[in-house]
Amino acid sequence: MYKIIHHKELTGIVSEVFLAMGCPADDAQTAANSLVSADLRGIDSHGVARLSGYVRLWEAKRVKSAPSIKVVHETPSTGVVDGDGGLGLVVGPFAMKVAIEKAANVGSGWVAVKNSNHFGIASSHAMMALEKDMIGIAMTNASALVAPTFSNERMLGTNPICVAVPAGEEKPFVADLATTTAANGKLEILQRKNLDAPVGWIQDKNGNSTQDSHALKTGGALLPLGGDREHGSHKGYALGSIVDIFSGVLSGANFGPWVPPFPAYVPMPENQPGEGIGHFFGAMRIDAFRDGQTFKRDMDLWIRRFKDAKPISEKQRVLIPGEPEFDMYEKRSVEGIPLLEMVWEDITLTADKFNIKF
Amino acid sequence: MYKIIHHKELTGIVSEVFLAMGCPADDAQTAANSLVSADLRGIDSHGVARLSGYVRLWEAKRVKSAPSIKVVHETPSTGVVDGDGGLGLVVGPFAMKVAIEKAANVGSGWVAVKNSNHFGIASSHAMMALEKDMIGIAMTNASALVAPTFSNERMLGTNPICVAVPAGEEKPFVADLATTTAANGKLEILQRKNLDAPVGWIQDKNGNSTQDSHALKTGGALLPLGGDREHGSHKGYALGSIVDIFSGVLSGANFGPWVPPFPAYVPMPENQPGEGIGHFFGAMRIDAFRDGQTFKRDMDLWIRRFKDAKPISEKQRVLIPGEPEFDMYEKRSVEGIPLLEMVWEDITLTADKFNIKF
Repeated sequence: MYKIIHHKELTGIVSEVFLAMGCPADDAQTAANSLVSADLRGIDSHGVARLSGYVRLWEAKRVKSAPSIKVVHETPSTGVVDGDGGLGLVVGPFAMKVAIEKAANVGSGWVAVKNSNHFGIASSHAMMALEKDMIGIAMTNASALVAPTFSNERMLGTNPICVAVPAGEEKPFVADLATTTAANGKLEILQRKNLDAPVGWIQDKNGNSTQDSHALKTGGALLPLGGDREHGSHKGYALGSIVDIFSGVLSGANFGPWVPPFPAYVPMPENQPGEGIGHFFGAMRIDAFRDGQTFKRDMDLWIRRFKDAKPISEKQRVLIPGEPEFDMYEKRSVEGIPLLEMVWEDITLTADKFNIKF
Repeated sequence: MYKIIHHKELTGIVSEVFLAMGCPADDAQTAANSLVSADLRGIDSHGVARLSGYVRLWEAKRVKSAPSIKVVHETPSTGVVDGDGGLGLVVGPFAMKVAIEKAANVGSGWVAVKNSNHFGIASSHAMMALEKDMIGIAMTNASALVAPTFSNERMLGTNPICVAVPAGEEKPFVADLATTTAANGKLEILQRKNLDAPVGWIQDKNGNSTQDSHALKTGGALLPLGGDREHGSHKGYALGSIVDIFSGVLSGANFGPWVPPFPAYVPMPENQPGEGIGHFFGAMRIDAFRDGQTFKRDMDLWIRRFKDAKPISEKQRVLIPGEPEFDMYEKRSVEGIPLLEMVWEDITLTADKFNIKF
């Protein structure tokens, strides 16, 4: 039922596909690394399972394989990057590098991006800051699937936020979260198995709570983190809105219901006010605030104290954000990545299109 | 049942109290403005109802009325402020001004604060950026009331985040949210009325879901935004942790279970790793990203499109974050602030202590 494949072999295949699409060699490698890093970290919904989707966007001329990515506006600590319609998997790391350079120079760097596409997992970008002893931040808007509190219209994407913080002896703190009750990937798993969703994940087209995991296909919507008004859905809606404004309005990209869809067959929204999808990246040098060693000592203390928090059940201690993904990374780096047969088949069909042999 | 008082008269009284405590005149005015702004905006739990609490902290020598607030570390875009144990209501605006100055110079400014105390509502600080055509960000850690997912120990405060974004003709976007399902202030209202809390707000000392609004007094805890694991409480826990790390670890303040309590009679946590309470502030100049007029035009479009989102019921359209608070501000600026009799009595008793006549 699974094809087990070593991440290096998988990265090689994915990189070949991007090369065949016309990506420069460095970009093909960057994009492949980013996609496979999602599978390595156990976020299968955002990994190589999406490869054929990116290729279809290119076939539909919605993505350029050899874009001219540029900084179009800047100050010492901020900038806007125009992705020129390139892959978010390539535009993202470009912009994150600009943020990191600015942080190296003046303490912090903040880069809004327009004219980009889906960038994969937010953590693959934010974590670039860690090796420089910086805090990394990444967020992106996405096509509308989420209804604001009091509405039955899809107005926001799942709009994830990632914050990555270096530690000393402990693994870094890496929080990467969609601003919805549940990520769309989790709902897709229930749909495939024809299972109900928990109350509070979705609503139907009339705005009533439903457990029908297929309700999104009939006009329903995902719910903001919180689920309903009584449980703070207005906060999830506010968080998703902040991501949309930082990524879309601040950069000149599209926002709200105008963000381009990922599936190439879905028509573009009409009267788009901006260019492509938007992202927002940040980098803050630790030593722009405190001595790095002291910070790391305190960050280790933070992590250890939270791991030691009194557990409700002896069977499950408190987890640090990012911890399950680091564990999965270590396991899959050694044992290989288990791909669902349908995902592996999709990849081989995509490779076949370009006559790639392996 | 209510004492109706004009905000200018109320600000005058509160300012007199802070003066009598030994605050310099400017600081007394700043602190009074900040507290009364909470009442004006309808966030009664964080307004003048807390005045006597601040006085008791000063009586217990946990707050200095005439601190020497200083920038102790900085780069062009970042800094750390040592609040010298002053009122957060005064230290906050000091640090926010530093962030705004840095943004004026290099595009953005980010200031972590240690050795401070409770700073009132986050929005009163973040909104200082609006008049400069900047995005303002404010967050703070607070004494532990919230249990992380899988734990029955209080490890985090309600740790609010505020993001304020200027618009053109529309009112600014001001999201100000505790990273819990419900703010502690809402729970206190239920406690006073002896009413049950909704499922998902709190847990008892064993970590079981409870509706007993008094459960916090018997070892229970508030729940992170999301409520339980199935509904994304690990995301609320992650958000509260980000606020704690930015405010506490990055600045050298206390963090996690070591953050000082607000009630002066609660003993200080032992073995504190840092100094006082921590905050984190940010300011980003709009024109450090895009032409200000174009941004404001798009921000107006964002706001209008969300207001027009299809409502579930014709009786309630979608609200923009901050909108109810602006409406309340307009109403109370004109009609006066309705103070609960017990709050008014508490203020007069506090004023009496210092022989303040009005």
